[in-house]
Amino acid sequence: MQNLAFNVLRTHHVEYLVTDLERAQAFYVDGVGFTVTERDADHLYLRGIEDRTHHNLVLRQAAEPGVAHVGFRVSQDSDLDAMQAHLASIGVPTHWAADAEHAIGRALRAQDPFGFSIEFFYEIDQVPWLLQRFDQHQGAEVMRIDHVNYLTPKIQEAFQWYQTHFGFQLSEYTVSVENGRDRIWGAWLHRKQTSHDLAISNGTGPRFHHASFIASSKERILAVADRLAALGYSANMERGPGRHGTTNAFFLYLRDPDGNRLELFTGDYLLVDPDWHPIRWDLEDPQRQTFWGAPAPKRWFDESMVAYDWDGRPLPTSEPALPDRPIVVD
Amino acid sequence: MQNLAFNVLRTHHVEYLVTDLERAQAFYVDGVGFTVTERDADHLYLRGIEDRTHHNLVLRQAAEPGVAHVGFRVSQDSDLDAMQAHLASIGVPTHWAADAEHAIGRALRAQDPFGFSIEFFYEIDQVPWLLQRFDQHQGAEVMRIDHVNYLTPKIQEAFQWYQTHFGFQLSEYTVSVENGRDRIWGAWLHRKQTSHDLAISNGTGPRFHHASFIASSKERILAVADRLAALGYSANMERGPGRHGTTNAFFLYLRDPDGNRLELFTGDYLLVDPDWHPIRWDLEDPQRQTFWGAPAPKRWFDESMVAYDWDGRPLPTSEPALPDRPIVVD
Amino acid sequence: MQNLAFNVLRTHHVEYLVTDLERAQAFYVDGVGFTVTERDADHLYLRGIEDRTHHNLVLRQAAEPGVAHVGFRVSQDSDLDAMQAHLASIGVPTHWAADAEHAIGRALRAQDPFGFSIEFFYEIDQVPWLLQRFDQHQGAEVMRIDHVNYLTPKIQEAFQWYQTHFGFQLSEYTVSVENGRDRIWGAWLHRKQTSHDLAISNGTGPRFHHASFIASSKERILAVADRLAALGYSANMERGPGRHGTTNAFFLYLRDPDGNRLELFTGDYLLVDPDWHPIRWDLEDPQRQTFWGAPAPKRWFDESMVAYDWDGRPLPTSEPALPDRPIVVD
Amino acid sequence: MQNLAFNVLRTHHVEYLVTDLERAQAFYVDGVGFTVTERDADHLYLRGIEDRTHHNLVLRQAAEPGVAHVGFRVSQDSDLDAMQAHLASIGVPTHWAADAEHAIGRALRAQDPFGFSIEFFYEIDQVPWLLQRFDQHQGAEVMRIDHVNYLTPKIQEAFQWYQTHFGFQLSEYTVSVENGRDRIWGAWLHRKQTSHDLAISNGTGPRFHHASFIASSKERILAVADRLAALGYSANMERGPGRHGTTNAFFLYLRDPDGNRLELFTGDYLLVDPDWHPIRWDLEDPQRQTFWGAPAPKRWFDESMVAYDWDGRPLPTSEPALPDRPIVVD
Repeated sequence: MQNLAFNVLRTHHVEYLVTDLERAQAFYVDGVGFTVTERDADHLYLRGIEDRTHHNLVLRQAAEPGVAHVGFRVSQDSDLDAMQAHLASIGVPTHWAADAEHAIGRALRAQDPFGFSIEFFYEIDQVPWLLQRFDQHQGAEVMRIDHVNYLTPKIQEAFQWYQTHFGFQLSEYTVSVENGRDRIWGAWLHRKQTSHDLAISNGTGPRFHHASFIASSKERILAVADRLAALGYSANMERGPGRHGTTNAFFLYLRDPDGNRLELFTGDYLLVDPDWHPIRWDLEDPQRQTFWGAPAPKRWFDESMVAYDWDGRPLPTSEPALPDRPIVVD
Repeated sequence: MQNLAFNVLRTHHVEYLVTDLERAQAFYVDGVGFTVTERDADHLYLRGIEDRTHHNLVLRQAAEPGVAHVGFRVSQDSDLDAMQAHLASIGVPTHWAADAEHAIGRALRAQDPFGFSIEFFYEIDQVPWLLQRFDQHQGAEVMRIDHVNYLTPKIQEAFQWYQTHFGFQLSEYTVSVENGRDRIWGAWLHRKQTSHDLAISNGTGPRFHHASFIASSKERILAVADRLAALGYSANMERGPGRHGTTNAFFLYLRDPDGNRLELFTGDYLLVDPDWHPIRWDLEDPQRQTFWGAPAPKRWFDESMVAYDWDGRPLPTSEPALPDRPIVVD
Repeated sequence: MQNLAFNVLRTHHVEYLVTDLERAQAFYVDGVGFTVTERDADHLYLRGIEDRTHHNLVLRQAAEPGVAHVGFRVSQDSDLDAMQAHLASIGVPTHWAADAEHAIGRALRAQDPFGFSIEFFYEIDQVPWLLQRFDQHQGAEVMRIDHVNYLTPKIQEAFQWYQTHFGFQLSEYTVSVENGRDRIWGAWLHRKQTSHDLAISNGTGPRFHHASFIASSKERILAVADRLAALGYSANMERGPGRHGTTNAFFLYLRDPDGNRLELFTGDYLLVDPDWHPIRWDLEDPQRQTFWGAPAPKRWFDESMVAYDWDGRPLPTSEPALPDRPIVVD
Repeated sequence: MQNLAFNVLRTHHVEYLVTDLERAQAFYVDGVGFTVTERDADHLYLRGIEDRTHHNLVLRQAAEPGVAHVGFRVSQDSDLDAMQAHLASIGVPTHWAADAEHAIGRALRAQDPFGFSIEFFYEIDQVPWLLQRFDQHQGAEVMRIDHVNYLTPKIQEAFQWYQTHFGFQLSEYTVSVENGRDRIWGAWLHRKQTSHDLAISNGTGPRFHHASFIASSKERILAVADRLAALGYSANMERGPGRHGTTNAFFLYLRDPDGNRLELFTGDYLLVDPDWHPIRWDLEDPQRQTFWGAPAPKRWFDESMVAYDWDGRPLPTSEPALPDRPIVVD
């Protein structure tokens, strides 16, 4: 492990842009089963039943959908100063935000070298824990955020950068085999003791493929599929329920009414011991992406979410050198 | 099978008396997960998500709790006339009720020879089916009524009477072994193609032990236990979740705020073929009442629900000759 | 209901032809979770944990795969004579088989007017019930047979024939709407008190689409998908796990190593009352075939199982006039 | 958090003494669902499907049952030297074991000030990961060890000692309220990012109450109860399935054929953020020990497992000053 002067605890939240906050609330809260912490004119702050902090997903009213930023929590406020110094030392500009994000203390913001808008912070409002308020659980019983999934053509650099500079650890990876040589195609990285906080996949980017939230059980993922169908959201279920080979995830991929993608997820594993040998998957192994064998639909590879810079401008993208998907896609 | 001039389809509903309809609604609907079909000043008409008929449980405002009557549905209206003739021929007085029970057509009412107030009818209002309205499912996702459980000291006569005169079939039975000889202690009887519509147990009676309702799954029975606890109803969970040996029932026994008992139930079996050999259980087999081995609490044997006659008077009871419980009770 | 001189209880078993009995046993028993009742040189007799009769699926060694026959159980042996007389009266030739099928008494065999080889019988060997032998449950915990699914271009005639002559009842149906007029495209028919014993779909036929077996829960269907994948059978999972709109079935469609199709199924409903209004589905309603909205794969419509006559010859097929699938197929 | 020169990762394994290894294997492996890594004449080394290290439970043939030791894993081998120095500095004697425990490298052993035999190590043989070998999963699908539960009359000192000297963190605690003042009665302590690695309860000690292992789901805990009952182990199920208030644990307590107690457990939470406020429970809150309200059986409080020193002698015990159980026990 790296000897770093700061400690990134985990992926903490993500900010999605939606064009109709009312419609988004119907989908995320009444449909999927997020808990509303707070709402103002332009924002809906959502959390899971296992969360003690103010939000794991911010929905912000905007003209176009996409992902505004990802927030990582550190283990103490002074970590932020050490982190600023370190980012300055490697030429990454940062700026401080105070009061820019409701319920959060000072935050250190940056554009990572691949274009993603990232934020680090420690202070955040505490809220009631709902784990045993079973009477308030509904839908997928969203527990907490698990990870976000970046798309970038610079997969090799990106996964090394998060390892080197923030101490992310590799749990699993996918390779594209070219002339008998492994080329990194995807990386599953974690800070907290589960399989991931951050997945990085090869593709046109910077873009976001999805953010992923833990559901309480496989049974509740099936139940939310039934619920969403009954509410008229059949077309919003893009893929699954199914089982990924990678990370053993039992998943359901949803598209919100603006097309933003999210994953409901359960079934990975604890990863506590430091002598973990990362699991290698071949991009062309059919059990990699769907353990049960059914290929992903094309749009799961074709479509992704726009990434914005801190001034709200969509980031220009570039194409990957490696193939952006397995040969067999449905 | 008996050659009867009428066809009893199934146990259709039960009427419970409650002293506070508001409080009962909070328990049965918000807590347990029944669906409200209709409410008037004195009645709450409840059903399950698989029901197409108006109610499977009527809660009626009364001065004292207990069970007012059980309703059985027949396969056509003319069955009622044939049934009246038959009951007259065996000396059982009947009377017709029209409009006495909301949503139900004419009904033939009687006191069976053991004291239980029973009603037969065909016509009943149809209501929307909610099986695929997953957005309205909650709590235990109550599906339908399964059975009622009588307590009577005349167990031998009672189980034969329902077999002979209404064509009930025996699926399982419990015996008390005395001097090497089996004495019937409990009988599980069915008309529909599942393990029971009517259970009859030895005990002080006529009294009712419980009515039983199908939950959608074991998982939803666990979930409703969590939900009830979170809502402050821990003391209302009398026994379980657990597994009965008899009928393989996965159960949770509840006491409503008035002390009326109901069972949530799942996991028995289809019983279609006529050459079924009834399953015999020994009263002292610990796996009979709890397959997993834990004995039932004393109050599960000590307490029962008052049975009323059609004029609303509590029925006098008598004591059984056989023991009213296994030797080992918790 | 028809006034028939005999009583068909239910669909009881189906006979599949396989080219390698050893390989088939590995798939059906170690993989899927059927219970072996008996095996001889050419046959494997399988049943479910809820069965008390000798088999619900016979696998017979043969040169080519397909379906040899379907067996229906009647409620007493003398029903067979009444049935023979009735079939003779409507011009359907029958023949008696005695000892032709192991464990079964005399059987009345026929080719129905649509080509399907059907058999009626009452006597069959009883075997131990395994419902509470939880230590022997594995895989999908196959409980019992549910139904078979015919493909025929004569859908209208076929569904009426089974209603008229055997008392099957319609639970649900699918229509193809042409010029504003409903044309029957599929029919779900039952004798036992669940949603079906026999499904008939429009298509090139006589062919079989699948036979369907009850798994103990949704959870066990997910578990068997994991198990089959771990055993190398990913490519044998053709469709699902998913939810049909029709009959509310939670399903997984499998292809055995010979390509024979079977469905694992749970989650339909009891259907006891005679005043059921059959549920109508439009062929083009996307929630009809997959409630969650994902279309079926093409091969689910393109491929089917050969039907054989009683002499083991493949039956000639003809094409349907109606479309054989919805417009949108994956 | 403490600034320690070493890093205890987690509770890693426990050693139980059994008087009949064959009988124990039938219970733990065929019954409960542990995986056998290795067996020699005197030992059975068991693990879970999520484990990559050689064992989480050692069963050792002995004349009397009980618990021989608990093993904690550290994050690197050199931590052990730092730990030895620290323990020496606070007057706790230690000794090194090399090759004393099969599959494990050098280990630092000690008797903690409360009498418990504890061991720290880093090196251990790696074994195949079975998480996706679904074909080998059975019974409760035991995933990994979760925690051990000490009984000691020195509860206050013990929980502070593990916090101060090894960096354990408090997730939840129970108090006995005396004259309006909270007295620590139980403590739930963790190193890995879940609710506990070590629970310490007030009671006659040093003794062990139980070790706890993660089952894959609530559903599998119900399934193993059915399985154990079918195998004749009904009397070995001491308590549950049920829900603890503390840590939200869905539990089943078992007694092995020698009377050693173990818990099957699922349903607690991730605990990543350092600003967690430990949850306080009152000993007399009925929802504390059983969220659903049913009291624990007496023997759950009356009986415990003998703790041995490193020379195999049973440790003398002393009585607690605080009450050793809530007032209401079944």
